[in-house]
Amino acid sequence: MKTILVVGIGAGNPEHITIQAINALNRADVLFIPDKGANKADLADLRREIIARYVTNPASRTLGYAVPQRDAANPDYGAGVDDWHAALAQRFAGLLADVPEDGSCAFLVWGDPGLYDSTIRIIERLRQAHPVAVEIVPGITSVQALTAAHGIALNRIGEPIHITTGRRLTAVTDDTIVMLDGQTAFTQADPDLEIFWGAYLGTPDEIIIAGRLGDVAEQIVATRQAARRQHGWIMDTYLLRKREAREPLHP
Amino acid sequence: MKTILVVGIGAGNPEHITIQAINALNRADVLFIPDKGANKADLADLRREIIARYVTNPASRTLGYAVPQRDAANPDYGAGVDDWHAALAQRFAGLLADVPEDGSCAFLVWGDPGLYDSTIRIIERLRQAHPVAVEIVPGITSVQALTAAHGIALNRIGEPIHITTGRRLTAVTDDTIVMLDGQTAFTQADPDLEIFWGAYLGTPDEIIIAGRLGDVAEQIVATRQAARRQHGWIMDTYLLRKREAREPLHP
Ligand SMILES: C[S@@+](CC[C@H](N)C(=O)[O-])C[C@H]1O[C@@H](n2cnc3c(N)ncnc32)[C@H](O)[C@@H]1O
Ligand SMILES: C[S@@+](CC[C@H](N)C(=O)[O-])C[C@H]1O[C@@H](n2cnc3c(N)ncnc32)[C@H](O)[C@@H]1O
Repeated sequence: MKTILVVGIGAGNPEHITIQAINALNRADVLFIPDKGANKADLADLRREIIARYVTNPASRTLGYAVPQRDAANPDYGAGVDDWHAALAQRFAGLLADVPEDGSCAFLVWGDPGLYDSTIRIIERLRQAHPVAVEIVPGITSVQALTAAHGIALNRIGEPIHITTGRRLTAVTDDTIVMLDGQTAFTQADPDLEIFWGAYLGTPDEIIIAGRLGDVAEQIVATRQAARRQHGWIMDTYLLRKREAREPLHP
Repeated sequence: MKTILVVGIGAGNPEHITIQAINALNRADVLFIPDKGANKADLADLRREIIARYVTNPASRTLGYAVPQRDAANPDYGAGVDDWHAALAQRFAGLLADVPEDGSCAFLVWGDPGLYDSTIRIIERLRQAHPVAVEIVPGITSVQALTAAHGIALNRIGEPIHITTGRRLTAVTDDTIVMLDGQTAFTQADPDLEIFWGAYLGTPDEIIIAGRLGDVAEQIVATRQAARRQHGWIMDTYLLRKREAREPLHP
């Protein structure tokens, strides 16, 4: 049986990589690198840099593959994702053919494979037709890169945490992390909330802004726009929480 | 100015450590190790093992310190925690005296320093009296160790995630991670939920159980009790979610 290693590589800093991930990458005969198109070349670059730095197994080889695009025009979001996963599962099956019998291959997944990433689900689908062993190696998420950069804890003492997407952001009661927000949903939130925002976290281009939402929202929108224009892409995430007198605003 | 490095070391597996954390530990002149008492000796052991494996800086030294106990008898939980943090801040100030001027020291924090850990908050308090620079290095959390061990994603496609404590667990609507649960709060939850439970994650003693809550709750309670008796302590965490026909129960 072939083994698929689903390896979290961290969220932008090559030093986010764990020893467990390095060892997993060095066990793989083939390392798969998605090609997300010129715009997001920086993302593929991180994967190549990680391989160059940490993979010392001379027998391993790297294989790039084109990522099919999700049909964003499909009015049914669920069906659009479903079709896209099916196309990816087929692509992965094709990649598997390049893996030696009883050999291993690795997918290098941005951040942690469990957090807003479809690789695990696509491999589940693939397994229905192709029996393979699967191992998952956790990686540092952008959530952790965000709180570390701001020098804050994710939660208040004993309090819950909510993680959601821009699309699903509603009234903030618990401390809330927002990811996958192309719509700057924070501009619709209560201006009295506190925001801790970060883009390109862990990379040399990291930008962070924090403060009372009503005071910094415009600055974040403008910074976001300018950075996106400059880089051709942006990845940002943020924490929203109620302000508390007891805790200092910025450490 | 002295620098405090708050370094996440992962949640039980010494290979959870990141390259960033290894580099930070090797920059420290003094490494602080909490002594949580004989019962949790295994926890202090992980820290010692990590230092033995990864710290190559011959100039660094390790300093153990006794952790003051929180007064669990205080009926006001908030005040009890507050007193406890104050005592810890004082202890940390004492430790700082052992750090050379303009030198660095490191706290090795279980999992990620941002997730249900008080180190950052205690250092915030310490800083009010002692100006120090602080750097936070993220680490793999027990949440990620849990989902990786079960081979699952943390979230459903595009859906939110809730992280809470046993004390605060209420009706489960979103996919919910429960930590710090000494009361087996899951036994009070809807038996039709699906549970993914794990103890001693990432360690050689790792135990995982998954299934329909009503079918496996008793088994988890019994396993938990036996393991706790055997080890003298237990750390467990779990994911509760609604069952969905579309996804396979266990990958
Ligand atoms: C498809 S999700 C992948 C998340 C990833 N698996 C993780 O663990 O962080 C992509 C989203 O993650 C966030 N993200 C990932 N990397 C980031 C970074 N370096 N800086 C800021 N946000 C990031 C953004 O919200 C982005 O929209
Ligand atoms: C004080 S919190 C610290 C969490 C830690 N900072 C992290 O990032 O995972 C302790 C709780 O974390 C969970 N936990 C930590 N390590 C664990 C492990 N190896 N296995 C299972 N649960 C763990 C348990 O729920 C435990 O009650």
